[in-house]
Amino acid sequence: MVITHRHEVSTGGQGDAHDLTAVVTRTVAESRIRSGTVTVFVVGSTAGVTTIEFEPGAVHDLNALFERCAPRDGDYRHHLRWGDDNGSSHVRAALLGPSVVVPFEDGKLLLGTWQQIALFEFDTRPRQREIVMQIVGD
Amino acid sequence: MVITHRHEVSTGGQGDAHDLTAVVTRTVAESRIRSGTVTVFVVGSTAGVTTIEFEPGAVHDLNALFERCAPRDGDYRHHLRWGDDNGSSHVRAALLGPSVVVPFEDGKLLLGTWQQIALFEFDTRPRQREIVMQIVGD
Amino acid sequence: MVITHRHEVSTGGQGDAHDLTAVVTRTVAESRIRSGTVTVFVVGSTAGVTTIEFEPGAVHDLNALFERCAPRDGDYRHHLRWGDDNGSSHVRAALLGPSVVVPFEDGKLLLGTWQQIALFEFDTRPRQREIVMQIVGD
Repeated sequence: MVITHRHEVSTGGQGDAHDLTAVVTRTVAESRIRSGTVTVFVVGSTAGVTTIEFEPGAVHDLNALFERCAPRDGDYRHHLRWGDDNGSSHVRAALLGPSVVVPFEDGKLLLGTWQQIALFEFDTRPRQREIVMQIVGD
Repeated sequence: MVITHRHEVSTGGQGDAHDLTAVVTRTVAESRIRSGTVTVFVVGSTAGVTTIEFEPGAVHDLNALFERCAPRDGDYRHHLRWGDDNGSSHVRAALLGPSVVVPFEDGKLLLGTWQQIALFEFDTRPRQREIVMQIVGD
Repeated sequence: MVITHRHEVSTGGQGDAHDLTAVVTRTVAESRIRSGTVTVFVVGSTAGVTTIEFEPGAVHDLNALFERCAPRDGDYRHHLRWGDDNGSSHVRAALLGPSVVVPFEDGKLLLGTWQQIALFEFDTRPRQREIVMQIVGD
């Protein structure tokens, strides 16, 4: 059995992060599927999804890691192509990946207490993001 | 329902990237499965799969990020073990990951317009790569 | 069809890695599911799962990459919040991701010969880790 849900998030540009755990938890609980996996996928190439302890310190620290490895003001060939300024966004998104797959059982996500599902916006401007939650199971 | 397809790609060594979107799109469309997820998985430990805006600038920029974080000519213990020269390949591949999971609906991948599925070759020599596309759904 | 298995691993703190391939291989083989995907997911926000050639050199090299990008003794805002010392653990885990999805066919994982499924402990102290293996397929 497969159920597809969508969720919209308005982001504030590079470094903005959103905790998706509540909406994924609710979507899974309200589906008729009791056990399986939920794929949480962000549409677009300048944002990413992972799990993290969602508190402002850890969110800041992950963004700081990305700034060290892929500085916003670095030189990117992508800028030459389109006159864009978001080369750092593309490489951060590709490195983190667009999706996380989380197992659930009896309608409950098998996350740790301090483990949340998070959307990271990497684009240099605010964006309207579409999150797909694809539930596959019994 | 589960369908497994394979696809072979000849790569040109470290930094070579291949856009897999067309073959994954066609494979999903031609399957009898209408909704579900496709796992795009590269067999082997020196290549990775992610999504990216597949244009030469962004591909170059991601490779440049890997070169900063895991330089090809760096010191790797892996080299001592086998006399290999591809320590950078192994750590880049482990960091990026071997697979991406993409949801689809009505036979269509739920990717963004500028979001392609890409194979990154990290090995230091050309390789013949096997890509597994595992489709699970209804 | 969905089957959920759990596996416990005692880890030795930051940098300790465990090869999960044997337990995942056995769990898939002993299930009644012949083809599908297995999601190997670590519960918690300070460990990660990927594939790598599981030999001590490559494992060391990946940890060294994390030490360059997210030094254990770096400054982390997360430390200010809880008095913790594991900011490096959180960002390494979020970057690597908590899960890997591996396809299988005829009860066999479609891994490469030198491609193992590995748990990386990033926390600064030994931990008891719960690994969820969620098998979805036919």
